[in-house]
Amino acid sequence: MSDANARPPAARPQDSTDTPSDALVALAERLADAGRQTARHHFRTPVAVDDKPDASPVTVADREAESAMRRIIEETHPEHGIVGEEHGTVRAGAENVWVLDPIDGTKQFISGKPTFGCLVALVHRDRPVLGVIDMPAIQERWVGAAGRTTLFADAHGEMPAQTRACPSLDAATLCATSPGMFAQAEENAAFERLRQHAKLTLYGGDCHNYGLLAAGYLDLVCEAGMSYYDFAALVPVIEGAGGVITDWQGRPLGPDSDGRVLAAGDPALHAQALEQVAT
Amino acid sequence: MSDANARPPAARPQDSTDTPSDALVALAERLADAGRQTARHHFRTPVAVDDKPDASPVTVADREAESAMRRIIEETHPEHGIVGEEHGTVRAGAENVWVLDPIDGTKQFISGKPTFGCLVALVHRDRPVLGVIDMPAIQERWVGAAGRTTLFADAHGEMPAQTRACPSLDAATLCATSPGMFAQAEENAAFERLRQHAKLTLYGGDCHNYGLLAAGYLDLVCEAGMSYYDFAALVPVIEGAGGVITDWQGRPLGPDSDGRVLAAGDPALHAQALEQVAT
Repeated sequence: MSDANARPPAARPQDSTDTPSDALVALAERLADAGRQTARHHFRTPVAVDDKPDASPVTVADREAESAMRRIIEETHPEHGIVGEEHGTVRAGAENVWVLDPIDGTKQFISGKPTFGCLVALVHRDRPVLGVIDMPAIQERWVGAAGRTTLFADAHGEMPAQTRACPSLDAATLCATSPGMFAQAEENAAFERLRQHAKLTLYGGDCHNYGLLAAGYLDLVCEAGMSYYDFAALVPVIEGAGGVITDWQGRPLGPDSDGRVLAAGDPALHAQALEQVAT
Repeated sequence: MSDANARPPAARPQDSTDTPSDALVALAERLADAGRQTARHHFRTPVAVDDKPDASPVTVADREAESAMRRIIEETHPEHGIVGEEHGTVRAGAENVWVLDPIDGTKQFISGKPTFGCLVALVHRDRPVLGVIDMPAIQERWVGAAGRTTLFADAHGEMPAQTRACPSLDAATLCATSPGMFAQAEENAAFERLRQHAKLTLYGGDCHNYGLLAAGYLDLVCEAGMSYYDFAALVPVIEGAGGVITDWQGRPLGPDSDGRVLAAGDPALHAQALEQVAT
Protein backbone atom coordinates (compact mmCIF):
# COMPACT_ATOMS: atom_id res chain seq x y z
CA MET A 1 0.00 0.00 0.00
CA SER A 2 1.46 3.35 -0.95
CA ASP A 3 1.86 6.40 1.21
CA ALA A 4 -0.90 8.11 -0.72
CA ASN A 5 -3.38 5.78 1.03
CA ALA A 6 -2.10 6.89 4.41
CA ARG A 7 -3.86 10.26 4.25
CA PRO A 8 -6.16 11.03 7.15
CA PRO A 9 -9.74 10.04 6.29
CA ALA A 10 -10.87 13.65 6.74
CA ALA A 11 -8.97 14.59 3.59
CA ARG A 12 -11.13 12.26 1.52
CA PRO A 13 -14.39 13.36 -0.05
CA GLN A 14 -17.23 12.85 2.43
CA ASP A 15 -20.03 12.62 -0.11
CA SER A 16 -20.10 9.09 -1.48
CA THR A 17 -21.38 10.33 -4.86
CA ASP A 18 -18.09 12.20 -5.12
CA THR A 19 -16.09 8.98 -5.26
CA PRO A 20 -16.44 7.32 -8.65
CA SER A 21 -17.64 3.71 -8.72
CA ASP A 22 -15.56 0.91 -10.22
CA ALA A 23 -17.98 0.95 -13.15
CA LEU A 24 -17.28 4.62 -13.86
CA VAL A 25 -13.52 4.08 -13.63
CA ALA A 26 -13.86 1.19 -16.08
CA LEU A 27 -15.94 3.37 -18.38
CA ALA A 28 -13.32 6.11 -18.33
CA GLU A 29 -10.70 3.55 -19.34
CA ARG A 30 -13.00 2.29 -22.12
CA LEU A 31 -13.25 5.84 -23.46
CA ALA A 32 -9.48 6.19 -23.35
CA ASP A 33 -9.13 2.84 -25.15
CA ALA A 34 -11.33 4.18 -27.96
CA GLY A 35 -9.31 7.38 -28.15
CA ARG A 36 -6.02 5.50 -28.16
CA GLN A 37 -7.15 3.15 -30.92
CA THR A 38 -8.24 6.00 -33.20
CA ALA A 39 -5.11 8.07 -32.58
CA ARG A 40 -2.81 5.10 -33.21
CA HIS A 41 -4.67 4.32 -36.44
CA HIS A 42 -3.93 7.79 -37.83
CA PHE A 43 -0.53 8.51 -36.23
CA ARG A 44 2.21 9.16 -38.80
CA THR A 45 -0.20 8.67 -41.70
CA PRO A 46 -0.97 11.54 -44.08
CA VAL A 47 -3.90 13.33 -42.45
CA ALA A 48 -5.28 16.67 -43.61
CA VAL A 49 -4.63 19.37 -41.02
CA ASP A 50 -7.23 22.11 -40.63
CA ASP A 51 -6.65 25.31 -38.71
CA LYS A 52 -9.29 26.13 -36.12
CA PRO A 53 -10.40 29.75 -35.56
CA ASP A 54 -7.69 30.08 -32.88
CA ALA A 55 -5.13 28.81 -35.46
CA SER A 56 -4.59 25.57 -33.54
CA PRO A 57 -4.51 22.49 -35.78
CA VAL A 58 -7.13 19.74 -35.85
CA THR A 59 -7.32 16.51 -37.82
CA VAL A 60 -9.72 13.71 -38.61
CA ALA A 61 -8.05 11.80 -35.78
CA ASP A 62 -9.13 14.40 -33.19
CA ARG A 63 -12.70 14.39 -34.53
CA GLU A 64 -13.04 10.61 -34.92
CA ALA A 65 -11.53 9.91 -31.50
CA GLU A 66 -13.93 12.27 -29.76
CA SER A 67 -16.90 10.91 -31.73
CA ALA A 68 -16.02 7.37 -30.67
CA MET A 69 -15.85 8.43 -27.02
CA ARG A 70 -19.12 10.37 -27.22
CA ARG A 71 -20.94 7.37 -28.73
CA ILE A 72 -19.92 5.21 -25.78
CA ILE A 73 -21.12 7.82 -23.26
CA GLU A 74 -24.46 8.23 -25.06
CA GLU A 75 -24.94 4.45 -25.03
CA THR A 76 -24.05 3.94 -21.38
CA HIS A 77 -25.03 7.19 -19.60
CA PRO A 78 -27.29 9.30 -21.79
CA GLU A 79 -28.04 11.45 -18.75
CA HIS A 80 -24.42 12.54 -18.38
CA GLY A 81 -23.18 15.81 -19.83
CA ILE A 82 -20.28 16.01 -22.33
CA VAL A 83 -17.77 18.80 -22.95
CA GLY A 84 -15.47 17.99 -25.85
CA GLU A 85 -12.72 19.98 -27.51
CA GLU A 86 -13.91 19.18 -31.03
CA HIS A 87 -17.67 18.59 -30.90
CA GLY A 88 -18.90 20.98 -28.23
CA THR A 89 -21.11 20.65 -25.18
CA VAL A 90 -24.32 18.78 -24.38
CA ARG A 91 -26.19 18.70 -21.02
CA ALA A 92 -23.70 21.04 -19.38
CA GLY A 93 -25.94 21.27 -16.30
CA ALA A 94 -25.90 17.52 -15.60
CA GLU A 95 -24.61 16.34 -12.21
CA ASN A 96 -21.93 14.30 -13.97
CA VAL A 97 -20.15 15.73 -17.00
CA TRP A 98 -17.45 14.06 -19.10
CA VAL A 99 -14.72 16.42 -20.29
CA LEU A 100 -12.79 15.10 -23.28
CA ASP A 101 -9.64 16.11 -25.14
CA PRO A 102 -9.28 13.40 -27.80
CA ILE A 103 -5.74 14.44 -28.76
CA ASP A 104 -3.88 16.69 -26.34
CA GLY A 105 -0.84 17.87 -28.24
CA THR A 106 -2.19 17.86 -31.79
CA LYS A 107 0.91 19.78 -32.89
CA GLN A 108 3.04 16.89 -31.65
CA PHE A 109 0.69 14.35 -33.24
CA ILE A 110 0.90 15.91 -36.72
CA SER A 111 4.69 16.18 -36.41
CA GLY A 112 5.21 12.48 -35.71
CA LYS A 113 6.12 13.07 -32.07
CA PRO A 114 4.91 10.31 -29.75
CA THR A 115 4.20 12.53 -26.74
CA PHE A 116 0.60 13.43 -27.50
CA GLY A 117 -2.14 12.22 -25.17
CA CYS A 118 -5.82 11.47 -24.82
CA LEU A 119 -7.55 13.05 -21.83
CA VAL A 120 -10.76 11.81 -20.22
CA ALA A 121 -12.27 13.44 -17.12
CA LEU A 122 -15.46 12.95 -15.16
CA VAL A 123 -16.57 16.09 -13.37
CA HIS A 124 -19.12 15.85 -10.53
CA ARG A 125 -20.78 19.15 -9.64
CA ASP A 126 -17.90 21.12 -11.20
CA ARG A 127 -15.24 19.07 -9.38
CA PRO A 128 -13.01 16.71 -11.41
CA VAL A 129 -13.32 13.34 -9.62
CA LEU A 130 -11.94 10.94 -12.24
CA GLY A 131 -9.19 11.42 -14.80
CA VAL A 132 -7.27 9.40 -17.37
CA ILE A 133 -4.06 10.56 -19.05
CA ASP A 134 -3.47 8.13 -21.88
CA MET A 135 -0.43 8.21 -24.19
CA PRO A 136 -1.52 6.28 -27.31
CA ALA A 137 1.82 6.09 -29.13
CA ILE A 138 3.99 5.06 -26.19
CA GLN A 139 1.20 3.06 -24.51
CA GLU A 140 1.37 4.58 -21.05
CA ARG A 141 -1.65 5.49 -18.93
CA TRP A 142 -2.44 7.15 -15.63
CA VAL A 143 -5.85 6.69 -13.95
CA GLY A 144 -6.77 8.88 -11.00
CA ALA A 145 -10.01 8.93 -9.01
CA ALA A 146 -11.07 10.75 -5.87
CA GLY A 147 -10.43 8.57 -2.82
CA ARG A 148 -8.05 6.22 -4.65
CA THR A 149 -4.35 6.04 -5.33
CA THR A 150 -3.49 6.94 -8.92
CA LEU A 151 -2.38 3.99 -11.02
CA PHE A 152 0.29 4.12 -13.74
CA ALA A 153 0.36 1.46 -16.44
CA ASP A 154 3.09 0.87 -19.02
CA ALA A 155 4.65 -2.10 -20.79
CA HIS A 156 5.87 -3.43 -17.42
CA GLY A 157 2.36 -3.58 -15.94
CA GLU A 158 0.30 -1.45 -13.57
CA MET A 159 1.64 0.13 -10.40
CA PRO A 160 0.67 2.85 -7.92
CA ALA A 161 1.87 6.32 -8.87
CA GLN A 162 3.52 8.41 -6.20
CA THR A 163 5.00 11.87 -6.54
CA ARG A 164 8.54 12.37 -5.26
CA ALA A 165 9.72 14.65 -2.47
CA CYS A 166 11.35 17.88 -3.63
CA PRO A 167 10.71 20.58 -1.04
CA SER A 168 13.09 23.13 -2.57
CA LEU A 169 12.64 25.03 -5.81
CA ASP A 170 16.37 25.16 -6.51
CA ALA A 171 16.41 21.35 -6.75
CA ALA A 172 13.30 21.09 -8.93
CA THR A 173 12.85 19.95 -12.51
CA LEU A 174 10.30 22.30 -14.08
CA CYS A 175 8.35 21.58 -17.27
CA ALA A 176 6.17 23.58 -19.64
CA THR A 177 5.05 22.61 -23.12
CA SER A 178 6.16 25.84 -24.78
CA PRO A 179 7.26 29.35 -23.80
CA GLY A 180 4.69 30.50 -26.37
CA MET A 181 1.83 29.55 -24.03
CA PHE A 182 2.66 32.49 -21.76
CA ALA A 183 0.95 34.92 -24.10
CA GLN A 184 0.49 37.73 -21.62
CA ALA A 185 3.50 39.73 -20.42
CA GLU A 186 2.67 39.08 -16.77
CA GLU A 187 2.45 35.35 -17.44
CA ASN A 188 5.78 35.37 -19.17
CA ALA A 189 7.38 37.31 -16.32
CA ALA A 190 5.94 34.94 -13.71
CA PHE A 191 7.19 31.85 -15.54
CA GLU A 192 10.58 33.47 -15.99
CA ARG A 193 10.85 34.02 -12.21
CA LEU A 194 10.03 30.37 -11.64
CA ARG A 195 12.46 29.18 -14.31
CA GLN A 196 15.31 31.20 -12.88
CA HIS A 197 14.83 29.58 -9.48
CA ALA A 198 14.40 26.00 -10.73
CA LYS A 199 17.32 23.63 -11.28
CA LEU A 200 16.30 22.32 -14.71
CA THR A 201 13.65 23.47 -17.18
CA LEU A 202 12.37 21.22 -19.95
CA TYR A 203 9.99 22.13 -22.76
CA GLY A 204 7.58 19.99 -24.76
CA GLY A 205 5.54 17.15 -23.33
CA ASP A 206 1.94 18.37 -23.12
CA CYS A 207 -0.13 16.20 -20.73
CA HIS A 208 2.69 13.65 -20.41
CA ASN A 209 4.48 16.07 -18.08
CA TYR A 210 1.66 15.75 -15.54
CA GLY A 211 1.77 11.97 -15.71
CA LEU A 212 5.54 11.97 -15.19
CA LEU A 213 5.04 14.32 -12.23
CA ALA A 214 2.49 11.92 -10.75
CA ALA A 215 4.94 9.04 -11.21
CA GLY A 216 7.74 10.91 -9.43
CA TYR A 217 10.03 11.65 -12.40
CA LEU A 218 9.77 15.43 -12.32
CA ASP A 219 8.68 18.06 -9.82
CA LEU A 220 6.82 21.00 -11.25
CA VAL A 221 4.65 21.88 -14.26
CA CYS A 222 3.64 25.50 -14.83
CA GLU A 223 1.48 26.39 -17.82
CA ALA A 224 -1.00 28.99 -19.06
CA GLY A 225 -3.57 29.33 -21.82
CA MET A 226 -5.04 25.95 -20.88
CA SER A 227 -8.66 25.06 -21.60
CA TYR A 228 -10.99 23.12 -19.31
CA TYR A 229 -10.52 19.95 -21.37
CA ASP A 230 -6.72 20.39 -21.10
CA PHE A 231 -6.62 20.26 -17.30
CA ALA A 232 -9.78 18.58 -15.92
CA ALA A 233 -8.33 15.06 -16.23
CA LEU A 234 -5.05 16.08 -14.61
CA VAL A 235 -6.57 16.96 -11.25
CA PRO A 236 -7.53 13.47 -9.99
CA VAL A 237 -4.31 11.98 -11.40
CA ILE A 238 -2.06 14.46 -9.58
CA GLU A 239 -4.04 14.53 -6.33
CA GLY A 240 -4.30 10.74 -6.16
CA ALA A 241 -0.50 10.50 -6.41
CA GLY A 242 0.15 12.89 -3.53
CA GLY A 243 0.65 16.07 -5.56
CA VAL A 244 -1.05 19.45 -5.65
CA ILE A 245 -2.57 21.12 -8.72
CA THR A 246 -4.24 24.53 -8.69
CA ASP A 247 -4.38 27.76 -10.64
CA TRP A 248 -1.63 30.36 -10.13
CA GLN A 249 -3.46 31.77 -7.10
CA GLY A 250 -3.65 28.40 -5.37
CA ARG A 251 -7.37 27.95 -6.11
CA PRO A 252 -8.89 24.61 -7.18
CA LEU A 253 -9.22 24.12 -10.95
CA GLY A 254 -12.73 24.08 -12.38
CA PRO A 255 -14.77 25.08 -15.40
CA ASP A 256 -14.30 28.79 -14.65
CA SER A 257 -10.53 28.69 -14.12
CA ASP A 258 -8.41 31.18 -16.05
CA GLY A 259 -6.24 28.58 -17.80
CA ARG A 260 -3.18 29.03 -15.61
CA VAL A 261 -2.09 25.74 -14.05
CA LEU A 262 0.54 25.00 -11.41
CA ALA A 263 1.23 21.38 -10.44
CA ALA A 264 3.82 20.15 -7.96
CA GLY A 265 4.64 16.69 -6.70
CA ASP A 266 5.63 17.97 -3.27
CA PRO A 267 3.08 20.22 -1.47
CA ALA A 268 5.92 22.27 0.06
CA LEU A 269 7.29 22.92 -3.43
CA HIS A 270 3.84 23.99 -4.62
CA ALA A 271 3.76 26.63 -1.89
CA GLN A 272 7.22 27.89 -2.90
CA ALA A 273 6.33 28.02 -6.57
CA LEU A 274 3.10 29.90 -5.83
CA GLU A 275 5.17 32.66 -4.26
CA GLN A 276 6.86 33.18 -7.62
CA VAL A 277 3.79 33.09 -9.88
CA ALA A 278 0.93 34.47 -7.76
CA THR A 279 0.13 38.11 -8.41
CA MET B 1 13.82 2.70 -54.67
CA SER B 2 13.39 6.15 -53.24
CA ASP B 3 14.00 9.46 -54.93
CA ALA B 4 17.08 9.95 -52.81
CA ASN B 5 18.80 7.32 -54.95
CA ALA B 6 17.95 9.28 -58.09
CA ARG B 7 20.56 11.95 -57.39
CA PRO B 8 23.07 12.51 -60.16
CA PRO B 9 26.18 10.40 -59.54
CA ALA B 10 28.30 13.55 -59.39
CA ALA B 11 26.66 14.45 -56.06
CA ARG B 12 28.02 11.28 -54.47
CA PRO B 13 31.41 11.11 -52.82
CA GLN B 14 33.99 10.25 -55.46
CA ASP B 15 36.54 8.77 -53.08
CA SER B 16 35.55 5.21 -52.37
CA THR B 17 37.07 5.37 -48.89
CA ASP B 18 34.46 8.03 -48.15
CA THR B 19 31.60 5.56 -48.50
CA PRO B 20 31.37 3.29 -45.47
CA SER B 21 31.45 -0.44 -46.05
CA ASP B 22 28.59 -2.72 -45.01
CA ALA B 23 30.83 -3.90 -42.17
CA LEU B 24 31.24 -0.37 -40.83
CA VAL B 25 27.49 0.28 -41.06
CA ALA B 26 26.89 -2.96 -39.15
CA LEU B 27 29.46 -1.92 -36.55
CA ALA B 28 27.75 1.44 -36.07
CA GLU B 29 24.48 -0.38 -35.44
CA ARG B 30 26.22 -2.71 -32.99
CA LEU B 31 27.47 0.32 -31.08
CA ALA B 32 23.97 1.78 -31.03
CA ASP B 33 22.61 -1.58 -29.81
CA ALA B 34 25.01 -1.44 -26.88
CA GLY B 35 24.03 2.14 -26.10
CA ARG B 36 20.33 1.33 -26.32
CA GLN B 37 20.64 -1.67 -24.03
CA THR B 38 22.47 0.30 -21.33
CA ALA B 39 20.10 3.26 -21.51
CA ARG B 40 17.01 1.04 -21.32
CA HIS B 41 18.47 -0.80 -18.34
CA HIS B 42 18.75 2.44 -16.36
CA PHE B 43 15.76 4.40 -17.72
CA ARG B 44 13.27 5.37 -15.01
CA THR B 45 15.34 3.72 -12.30
CA PRO B 46 16.87 5.76 -9.49
CA VAL B 47 20.24 6.89 -10.86
CA ALA B 48 22.51 9.41 -9.20
CA VAL B 49 22.74 12.58 -11.25
CA ASP B 50 26.05 14.46 -11.23
CA ASP B 51 26.47 17.97 -12.58
CA LYS B 52 29.32 18.42 -15.04
CA PRO B 53 31.44 21.59 -15.01
CA ASP B 54 29.02 23.17 -17.53
CA ALA B 55 26.12 22.27 -15.14
CA SER B 56 24.71 19.70 -17.56
CA PRO B 57 23.68 16.44 -15.87
CA VAL B 58 25.38 13.09 -16.34
CA THR B 59 24.55 9.65 -14.96
CA VAL B 60 26.01 6.18 -14.72
CA ALA B 61 23.92 5.37 -17.79
CA ASP B 62 25.79 7.92 -19.92
CA ARG B 63 29.15 6.64 -18.70
CA GLU B 64 28.35 2.92 -18.97
CA ALA B 65 26.79 3.29 -22.41
CA GLU B 66 29.84 5.10 -23.77
CA SER B 67 32.22 2.60 -22.15
CA ALA B 68 30.35 -0.28 -23.77
CA MET B 69 30.62 1.38 -27.18
CA ARG B 70 34.31 2.21 -26.74
CA ARG B 71 35.11 -1.40 -25.80
CA ILE B 72 33.59 -2.62 -29.06
CA ILE B 73 35.58 -0.10 -31.11
CA GLU B 74 38.84 -1.01 -29.35
CA GLU B 75 38.18 -4.71 -30.05
CA THR B 76 37.28 -4.29 -33.71
CA HIS B 77 39.22 -1.23 -34.92
CA PRO B 78 41.95 -0.28 -32.46
CA GLU B 79 43.38 2.03 -35.13
CA HIS B 80 40.24 4.21 -35.20
CA GLY B 81 39.97 7.38 -33.16
CA ILE B 82 37.22 8.01 -30.62
CA VAL B 83 35.62 11.25 -29.46
CA GLY B 84 33.10 10.66 -26.69
CA GLU B 85 31.02 13.09 -24.66
CA GLU B 86 31.82 11.37 -21.35
CA HIS B 87 35.24 9.73 -21.68
CA GLY B 88 37.18 12.09 -23.93
CA THR B 89 39.28 11.63 -27.05
CA VAL B 90 41.81 9.06 -28.23
CA ARG B 91 43.69 9.00 -31.57
CA ALA B 92 42.04 12.23 -32.73
CA GLY B 93 44.31 12.29 -35.79
CA ALA B 94 43.19 8.92 -37.13
CA GLU B 95 41.71 8.75 -40.63
CA ASN B 96 38.50 7.33 -39.18
CA VAL B 97 37.14 8.69 -35.92
CA TRP B 98 34.01 7.56 -34.06
CA VAL B 99 32.08 10.37 -32.42
CA LEU B 100 29.76 9.19 -29.63
CA ASP B 101 26.99 10.76 -27.57
CA PRO B 102 25.78 7.88 -25.40
CA ILE B 103 22.68 9.73 -24.18
CA ASP B 104 21.63 12.78 -26.14
CA GLY B 105 19.01 14.47 -23.98
CA THR B 106 20.23 13.45 -20.54
CA LYS B 107 17.80 16.00 -19.05
CA GLN B 108 14.93 14.10 -20.70
CA PHE B 109 16.40 10.76 -19.62
CA ILE B 110 16.57 11.70 -15.94
CA SER B 111 13.03 13.12 -16.10
CA GLY B 112 11.44 9.92 -17.41
CA LYS B 113 10.85 11.37 -20.87
CA PRO B 114 11.28 8.80 -23.65
CA THR B 115 12.68 11.18 -26.26
CA PHE B 116 16.36 10.85 -25.43
CA GLY B 117 18.67 9.30 -28.02
CA CYS B 118 21.99 7.58 -28.57
CA LEU B 119 24.19 9.07 -31.29
CA VAL B 120 26.93 7.22 -33.17
CA ALA B 121 28.93 8.84 -35.98
CA LEU B 122 31.90 7.78 -38.06
CA VAL B 123 33.92 10.71 -39.33
CA HIS B 124 36.34 10.20 -42.22
CA ARG B 125 38.94 12.96 -42.57
CA ASP B 126 36.74 15.40 -40.64
CA ARG B 127 33.65 14.57 -42.72
CA PRO B 128 30.77 12.66 -41.05
CA VAL B 129 30.10 9.72 -43.40
CA LEU B 130 28.01 7.41 -41.20
CA GLY B 131 25.47 8.25 -38.52
CA VAL B 132 22.97 6.48 -36.30
CA ILE B 133 20.21 8.22 -34.37
CA ASP B 134 18.83 5.62 -31.98
CA MET B 135 15.90 6.20 -29.62
CA PRO B 136 16.28 3.54 -26.91
CA ALA B 137 13.00 4.04 -25.06
CA ILE B 138 10.70 4.19 -28.08
CA GLN B 139 12.81 1.80 -30.13
CA GLU B 140 13.20 3.87 -33.28
CA ARG B 141 16.41 4.20 -35.29
CA TRP B 142 17.75 6.08 -38.28
CA VAL B 143 20.90 4.92 -40.09
CA GLY B 144 22.51 7.22 -42.65
CA ALA B 145 25.68 6.66 -44.68
CA ALA B 146 27.31 8.58 -47.49
CA GLY B 147 26.15 7.24 -50.85
CA ARG B 148 23.13 5.43 -49.38
CA THR B 149 19.52 6.23 -48.66
CA THR B 150 18.87 6.72 -44.95
CA LEU B 151 16.88 3.91 -43.35
CA PHE B 152 14.29 4.36 -40.59
CA ALA B 153 13.37 1.41 -38.37
CA ASP B 154 10.52 1.22 -35.87
CA ALA B 155 8.10 -1.41 -34.60
CA HIS B 156 6.64 -1.72 -38.10
CA GLY B 157 9.99 -2.65 -39.67
CA GLU B 158 12.65 -0.85 -41.70
CA MET B 159 11.92 1.58 -44.52
CA PRO B 160 13.73 4.27 -46.52
CA ALA B 161 13.55 7.72 -44.95
CA GLN B 162 12.68 10.62 -47.20
CA THR B 163 12.26 14.25 -46.23
CA ARG B 164 9.06 16.00 -47.32
CA ALA B 165 8.68 18.95 -49.65
CA CYS B 166 8.05 22.28 -47.93
CA PRO B 167 9.52 25.06 -50.03
CA SER B 168 7.97 27.91 -48.04
CA LEU B 169 8.87 29.01 -44.52
CA ASP B 170 5.31 30.10 -43.72
CA ALA B 171 4.14 26.49 -44.13
CA ALA B 172 6.98 24.97 -42.11
CA THR B 173 6.98 23.15 -38.80
CA LEU B 174 10.06 24.34 -36.90
CA CYS B 175 11.63 22.54 -33.93
CA ALA B 176 14.23 23.38 -31.31
CA THR B 177 14.93 21.54 -28.07
CA SER B 178 14.77 24.63 -25.86
CA PRO B 179 14.78 28.42 -26.21
CA GLY B 180 17.50 28.31 -23.55
CA MET B 181 20.01 26.96 -26.08
CA PHE B 182 20.16 30.38 -27.79
CA ALA B 183 22.43 31.74 -25.13
CA GLN B 184 23.79 34.69 -27.09
CA ALA B 185 21.54 37.65 -27.86
CA GLU B 186 22.23 37.42 -31.59
CA GLU B 187 21.32 33.72 -31.57
CA ASN B 188 18.10 34.43 -29.78
CA ALA B 189 17.22 37.21 -32.22
CA ALA B 190 17.96 34.99 -35.22
CA PHE B 191 15.81 32.14 -33.92
CA GLU B 192 13.03 34.60 -33.11
CA ARG B 193 13.02 35.83 -36.74
CA LEU B 194 12.76 32.25 -37.95
CA ARG B 195 10.02 31.40 -35.46
CA GLN B 196 7.93 34.39 -36.44
CA HIS B 197 8.00 33.31 -40.09
CA ALA B 198 7.32 29.61 -39.47
CA LYS B 199 3.84 28.13 -39.25
CA LEU B 200 4.32 26.02 -36.12
CA THR B 201 7.12 25.90 -33.57
CA LEU B 202 7.60 22.93 -31.25
CA TYR B 203 10.06 22.61 -28.39
CA GLY B 204 11.68 19.54 -26.84
CA GLY B 205 12.83 16.52 -28.78
CA ASP B 206 16.65 16.65 -28.86
CA CYS B 207 18.05 14.41 -31.63
CA HIS B 208 14.62 12.88 -32.33
CA ASN B 209 13.68 16.09 -34.17
CA TYR B 210 16.35 15.38 -36.79
CA GLY B 211 15.12 11.83 -37.27
CA LEU B 212 11.54 13.04 -37.68
CA LEU B 213 12.78 15.61 -40.20
CA ALA B 214 14.56 12.84 -42.14
CA ALA B 215 11.36 10.78 -42.12
CA GLY B 216 9.28 13.67 -43.49
CA TYR B 217 7.22 14.54 -40.39
CA LEU B 218 8.59 18.02 -39.81
CA ASP B 219 10.48 20.59 -41.86
CA LEU B 220 13.08 22.58 -39.99
CA VAL B 221 15.33 22.24 -36.93
CA CYS B 222 17.35 25.25 -35.79
CA GLU B 223 19.60 24.95 -32.75
CA ALA B 224 22.69 26.45 -31.15
CA GLY B 225 25.16 25.55 -28.43
CA MET B 226 25.62 22.09 -29.96
CA SER B 227 28.79 20.06 -29.49
CA TYR B 228 30.51 17.95 -32.14
CA TYR B 229 29.06 14.75 -30.65
CA ASP B 230 25.57 16.34 -30.75
CA PHE B 231 25.53 16.88 -34.51
CA ALA B 232 28.10 14.60 -36.21
CA ALA B 233 25.67 11.68 -36.48
CA LEU B 234 22.87 13.87 -37.80
CA VAL B 235 24.69 14.82 -41.02
CA PRO B 236 24.63 11.48 -42.88
CA VAL B 237 21.07 10.79 -41.66
CA ILE B 238 19.70 14.09 -42.97
CA GLU B 239 21.69 14.13 -46.21
CA GLY B 240 20.82 10.52 -47.02
CA ALA B 241 17.11 11.36 -46.72
CA GLY B 242 17.28 14.29 -49.16
CA GLY B 243 17.68 17.09 -46.61
CA VAL B 244 20.30 19.74 -45.97
CA ILE B 245 22.15 20.34 -42.70
CA THR B 246 24.76 23.07 -42.20
CA ASP B 247 25.79 25.73 -39.73
CA TRP B 248 23.94 29.07 -39.73
CA GLN B 249 26.18 30.38 -42.51
CA GLY B 250 25.42 27.44 -44.80
CA ARG B 251 28.82 25.81 -44.22
CA PRO B 252 29.25 22.03 -43.78
CA LEU B 253 29.34 20.83 -40.18
CA GLY B 254 32.63 19.52 -38.86
CA PRO B 255 34.79 19.34 -35.75
CA ASP B 256 35.46 23.09 -35.86
CA SER B 257 31.84 24.20 -36.29
CA ASP B 258 30.50 26.85 -33.92
CA GLY B 259 27.62 24.73 -32.59
CA ARG B 260 24.88 26.44 -34.59
CA VAL B 261 22.91 23.94 -36.66
CA LEU B 262 20.25 24.46 -39.32
CA ALA B 263 18.57 21.41 -40.88
CA ALA B 264 15.80 21.44 -43.46
CA GLY B 265 14.01 18.65 -45.28
CA ASP B 266 13.54 20.76 -48.40
CA PRO B 267 16.69 22.40 -49.86
CA ALA B 268 14.63 25.44 -50.94
CA LEU B 269 13.42 25.85 -47.35
CA HIS B 270 16.99 25.64 -46.07
CA ALA B 271 17.93 28.55 -48.34
CA GLN B 272 14.96 30.59 -47.04
CA ALA B 273 15.76 29.81 -43.42
CA LEU B 274 19.43 30.76 -43.91
CA GLU B 275 18.30 34.25 -44.95
CA GLN B 276 16.74 34.64 -41.50
CA VAL B 277 19.58 33.27 -39.37
CA ALA B 278 22.77 34.09 -41.31
CA THR B 279 24.61 37.17 -40.07
